[in-house]
Amino acid sequence: MWTYRAPVADMHWLLAKVLDAPASWAALPAFDGLDADTAREVLEQAGRFAGEVLAPTNAPGDLAGCTWTPDGVTTPPGFAAAYKAFVDGGWPALACAPEAGGQGLPQLLNAALYEMLTAANHAWTMYPGLLHGAYEVLLHHAVPELRARYLEKVATGEWLATMNLTEPQAGSDLGLVRTKADPVDGASAANGTPVLITGHKIFISGGDHDLTDNIVHLVLCRLADAPSGTRGLSLAIVPKFMPDGARNAVFCDGIEKKMGIKGSATCQMRFERAQGWLIGEPNRGLSAMFLMMNSARLHVGMQGIGHLEAATQNAHAYAAERLQMRAAHRPAGTGGSAADPIAWHPAMRRALLTLQARTDGARTLAYWIALLLDEAGQHPDAEHRRAAADHVALLTPVAKAFFTDLGHRSADEALGIWGGYGFVHEYGIEQTVRDSRIALIYEGTNEIQAVDLMQRKLLDDGGRRAEALRTWLGDEVRACHADAVTCPFGDALALQLEAWGDTQSALLAGAKDDPEWPLRAADDMLAGVGHALMAWAWARIARHAVDPNGAPGAGGRTAAQWLDAARFGIEWLLPQAQVHWQRAAQRNAALPFVGP
Amino acid sequence: MWTYRAPVADMHWLLAKVLDAPASWAALPAFDGLDADTAREVLEQAGRFAGEVLAPTNAPGDLAGCTWTPDGVTTPPGFAAAYKAFVDGGWPALACAPEAGGQGLPQLLNAALYEMLTAANHAWTMYPGLLHGAYEVLLHHAVPELRARYLEKVATGEWLATMNLTEPQAGSDLGLVRTKADPVDGASAANGTPVLITGHKIFISGGDHDLTDNIVHLVLCRLADAPSGTRGLSLAIVPKFMPDGARNAVFCDGIEKKMGIKGSATCQMRFERAQGWLIGEPNRGLSAMFLMMNSARLHVGMQGIGHLEAATQNAHAYAAERLQMRAAHRPAGTGGSAADPIAWHPAMRRALLTLQARTDGARTLAYWIALLLDEAGQHPDAEHRRAAADHVALLTPVAKAFFTDLGHRSADEALGIWGGYGFVHEYGIEQTVRDSRIALIYEGTNEIQAVDLMQRKLLDDGGRRAEALRTWLGDEVRACHADAVTCPFGDALALQLEAWGDTQSALLAGAKDDPEWPLRAADDMLAGVGHALMAWAWARIARHAVDPNGAPGAGGRTAAQWLDAARFGIEWLLPQAQVHWQRAAQRNAALPFVGP
Repeated sequence: MWTYRAPVADMHWLLAKVLDAPASWAALPAFDGLDADTAREVLEQAGRFAGEVLAPTNAPGDLAGCTWTPDGVTTPPGFAAAYKAFVDGGWPALACAPEAGGQGLPQLLNAALYEMLTAANHAWTMYPGLLHGAYEVLLHHAVPELRARYLEKVATGEWLATMNLTEPQAGSDLGLVRTKADPVDGASAANGTPVLITGHKIFISGGDHDLTDNIVHLVLCRLADAPSGTRGLSLAIVPKFMPDGARNAVFCDGIEKKMGIKGSATCQMRFERAQGWLIGEPNRGLSAMFLMMNSARLHVGMQGIGHLEAATQNAHAYAAERLQMRAAHRPAGTGGSAADPIAWHPAMRRALLTLQARTDGARTLAYWIALLLDEAGQHPDAEHRRAAADHVALLTPVAKAFFTDLGHRSADEALGIWGGYGFVHEYGIEQTVRDSRIALIYEGTNEIQAVDLMQRKLLDDGGRRAEALRTWLGDEVRACHADAVTCPFGDALALQLEAWGDTQSALLAGAKDDPEWPLRAADDMLAGVGHALMAWAWARIARHAVDPNGAPGAGGRTAAQWLDAARFGIEWLLPQAQVHWQRAAQRNAALPFVGP
Repeated sequence: MWTYRAPVADMHWLLAKVLDAPASWAALPAFDGLDADTAREVLEQAGRFAGEVLAPTNAPGDLAGCTWTPDGVTTPPGFAAAYKAFVDGGWPALACAPEAGGQGLPQLLNAALYEMLTAANHAWTMYPGLLHGAYEVLLHHAVPELRARYLEKVATGEWLATMNLTEPQAGSDLGLVRTKADPVDGASAANGTPVLITGHKIFISGGDHDLTDNIVHLVLCRLADAPSGTRGLSLAIVPKFMPDGARNAVFCDGIEKKMGIKGSATCQMRFERAQGWLIGEPNRGLSAMFLMMNSARLHVGMQGIGHLEAATQNAHAYAAERLQMRAAHRPAGTGGSAADPIAWHPAMRRALLTLQARTDGARTLAYWIALLLDEAGQHPDAEHRRAAADHVALLTPVAKAFFTDLGHRSADEALGIWGGYGFVHEYGIEQTVRDSRIALIYEGTNEIQAVDLMQRKLLDDGGRRAEALRTWLGDEVRACHADAVTCPFGDALALQLEAWGDTQSALLAGAKDDPEWPLRAADDMLAGVGHALMAWAWARIARHAVDPNGAPGAGGRTAAQWLDAARFGIEWLLPQAQVHWQRAAQRNAALPFVGP
């Protein structure tokens, strides 16, 4: 049956050895004294919470779902107790600043924590999932009085937070948002001004629930005299309960019946002249919200890693136990029997190695991006911060789209390993398939991420940001070539970086005459870049696996196992990249309008 | 909201013009007098049943599911009434012989019917889904007395039939089946011998329900003195109610809680010395069952086409209505507005054209295979029958695996077109995603199909069967080249046929030294062949679309629309084939054993 055990040894080896995070942290004063052993201790405790407290609530939560009455939402049995344990353990505040009640640990460890939480119970993880983003918005944009009132409550998770963007007519197109903000007593609007909020929002995760005494809504809204479109959007904070304890006029009118994450309440919200306060400057709400959204996008990318891991470890366990048919070829030293573990059959070896290679590669990349996020925020050198921030900007849409796509697709492919049992609820994998689908959509659909990558990250600066990143990635080619006998993947990585550069140059040169080309090519460009990054991760894993000083330690997989998965990634999965590069580069392929 | 309207004009154009089915039928005495107009009339009536009677039961059936008590299974509201209308309309007997109460129409029209039924309600379609296979088994293997008792009941759908293969330890590996058959009074076993059946079966679709007065189970079982493995399996017929009206000792002990097709009862069956009769020779049960399974595999392939069509038509309708953001580029003659239909945005055009091109190509192939099935069964010339049967044998595993994969993957991709609404049950597409997943698993998993194709269809005869098929497909290259200005896809098809031939030759030559290579390459070989066949379909569609005598008529899409989708298939989807050919041909790629 479905279980989740955090692969702490794998996670720790990747961050401590393959990425050498402790060396990065040593350069960041905020993480002074943080070493590999402390990181392992944090991962182990997080793993215990995820595996022992949270994972047992996953399947029951899917069956029970949330229930709604006009009085509010009830979460599935066990969710509230798990949330209490989460807050008591200090987990919400892991990466918040000590002065706001936080533990001041790196984003990298927070990313690993959320990978584990999603793997254990994606629906539950939706509730605390926006806490860190809300914390960032309040920290950077709220006036001191509001910070004093809300920041620590949110940092510690005592109160949960939501992000209210979508309206029925305004999904990917937030410029169409209509929710009104009227300054109280006709005051002129400024940061911190009290406002009355009126409007309807949909798809609000955790818009109501029974986990915390209060809920803090961050609401995208429009002042009466604001310009139309996204430049007329403001941001307001609207608590469920006012500072004096009175119930505010914000209501949950219903919840959606969804394909997955059924334990997460997806709320239809109504604001009836609800009392709130502006956060940040009027009409600058979207840029304040983007701070939250970028953090949220990386967070969603981690959900993809969590789903990958959950699918991979459960598939391996099932395939080792299930006996069907004799294998044409058996592992050395095993005897004959009427039926062998399906893990020995070639089609299943392909499926299992696909899962493992994707998990290893994507996790390495995700942790690296989180490490860069810490450097971008904390490095004492401004130039280093700027370079790291440039890398993060480019990598964030890739992480969101590529990892969630891998997570869902891999779970869906993994289901086949169970055969007919995979389609049955009690084996768990079908829930992973359903839960993982939403991550491709929310926080900006994967198609929106691809356009963001193409237009605002690859082309807008003439390609300089991308070239800096490719140069950095190229260091791995040189490291592999310095040790070519044991790390043979340098050439494969070099070819990918070259294809990326060539495709991007073609687009930069051709977009003037054919402005739609980058839009037609966006999805393939993102997939191509994703594959190039995976090549980097597989090469780097392989190089450290075979290095006696960097080899994985006891408790995890062997060096040979890491190498097998990396080699499979290079030989069997990377060829897919050529299709993406070829399609992205085909300037004249027709893409006609369709429809009746 | 989700609807289904059978695309009768599209279907009819493909079968009547692109495939010229009436010319084939004219050569088959069994279909004497059947013309294109009659076929259209059948399609229109079937379309009315699917769209008006069946489709409205789809979403409610998913929500209600089946309910089980020890007394049996209750199907969702509306299922029984729809089934009665189906039987009253004579639909079960469409392709059965007139002497068995059937209408004697071609398999091609039956395939189109089942495409419509699946698109309208996959769960419901599971109940009559095995009727035709059971009819074939009884017709060809039952002794006259049993034929007299059961054949017409099954042909007309008055009684429904099931296929009892799987046991907990015996899924893909039927050699592990343990269910016992004991001849009554110790008689020696022969065709028609009364037997007592004892054992447990799982995953039995329609093992119990409230749609018909009786249910006829075809049960794979083992006589006491039978050899182990698949050569010791026999087949028995076990009715729920005996000829004298007594209840037989066959019981449904429960139903599965599944990811999808929730209105289909997936039963755990128990046979407690249930009375039955052998069908076919003792120990030859699997070959009798294979007759049913081959018919069932093409039937499952049609489910893929149904899901493709349901996803495609609903996605087109939604994308035409949903307004978000201005499009960078608009169709000629349209004005400006704050937000355009999402169908105009490049990422959505890609998604919609992908759906349309796959639907058109896969449907053309599926109908062609069904047409060959009729020729294999009915053509007066033995050599023609044999050649058609060879084509069908090779194409059946491809149809089952490639079409179901396309159906599910396309539904899953289509969901993204709805954005967040796609994840919500009431928009319907998430149900299509869940329902379509099972088709990749049952009737032999898609991995099993790939091994079947590789070992028993491509390599076993030294490649002659495949070469004959490629020669036949190559006629389309010559037809395109004869008219190269308007049908430019001949070269693309020729390249695919060449890649197929080269890859297969390499495997034929190399399999002796590396017997596992064909197994490692099987999945890619099937996908490669699937792409080559799609290239054939797109080329053929394009050639007929631009031919003034073959152009689509009123009521369907225009020639330009058919051509757009075919061109998109060739330019954007076909490049994927090269990855499959490349991987199938890489002899030395490592595929190590994995696991703990």
